Amino acid sequence: MNSHDESQQPDLSADGLEAFKRVFRRHAAGVAVITTLSPDGSPAGFTATSLASLAASPPLATFNMAQISSSWPAMTVGNHVIIHTLGPRSRHHAERMAASHELRFAGEHWHPGPYGVPILEGVTAWMLGRIIAVHPAHSNAVVIVEIEQGELGDEDDALLYHERTYMRPGSLEV
Amino acid sequence: MNSHDESQQPDLSADGLEAFKRVFRRHAAGVAVITTLSPDGSPAGFTATSLASLAASPPLATFNMAQISSSWPAMTVGNHVIIHTLGPRSRHHAERMAASHELRFAGEHWHPGPYGVPILEGVTAWMLGRIIAVHPAHSNAVVIVEIEQGELGDEDDALLYHERTYMRPGSLEV
Repeated sequence: MNSHDESQQPDLSADGLEAFKRVFRRHAAGVAVITTLSPDGSPAGFTATSLASLAASPPLATFNMAQISSSWPAMTVGNHVIIHTLGPRSRHHAERMAASHELRFAGEHWHPGPYGVPILEGVTAWMLGRIIAVHPAHSNAVVIVEIEQGELGDEDDALLYHERTYMRPGSLEV
Repeated sequence: MNSHDESQQPDLSADGLEAFKRVFRRHAAGVAVITTLSPDGSPAGFTATSLASLAASPPLATFNMAQISSSWPAMTVGNHVIIHTLGPRSRHHAERMAASHELRFAGEHWHPGPYGVPILEGVTAWMLGRIIAVHPAHSNAVVIVEIEQGELGDEDDALLYHERTYMRPGSLEV
């Protein structure tokens, strides 16, 4: 009997969902936190690994979200969000903003910024964006914002999420 | 005279474009290459740092692009793209697919995949996506694809782009 059992060989090809999972497992993403104000005036926010640049003139950015998110009711054209970039020293924000919705703004880790939108303390940078388009797709959506102002924060590495772990960028030379 | 010159202090707050630049300078992104077939049947493709997951059920992904891209004429609903993830060993694809359009497919570094869409050799994974929506915004666009199949490739780290340099994920413990 051959010691190579064919059923033990990895199956390299895959259907849609499995291919999707594999590609994103091999893809690293920067970590951002999006905050906003709900229609009732309460703060809302979530951790996003989908922040991307769309254009520089005018400055546009996109992020993706689920319509079940507690922040979804705030995603109307003309409303504002604040997009924060994080570093290893501020990754507690990423953890908190991915945890239970009720606990996300319980504490002294934020203050109201422009239009009352929460600004998290100790982030590496933040920018205020006005929502210019919301494109639903199944139970999720792409949100496009135009950047209006922002502020540079603490000097720190960029925060990454890869293989279910927070990481930081490292040199290609080992 | 005071040795601290106030004009030398960094100005932490900024208008839209400057805030946008600062945030994305502090944000790290995974690197992907998108390939497709132009309406005339010729291969086209580009390097993207905007690949993001949108949904798992059905598996949806997004990427952003400029409408001046040589791949733009192929971005019609129902058409197919292949999204490749890269590693440090395959970063030459990222460099080539960001260089002159005419040279991107001159060579033996690819072969035709499903629907004739180019598959790059030696990538860490690829997935075939059918375009389900194209959302223009100024001179750019967000493209939404539904993933239909894919294949796992060479084992390698993820490839990052941060501060105009290719990098790899590293541990938070230094």
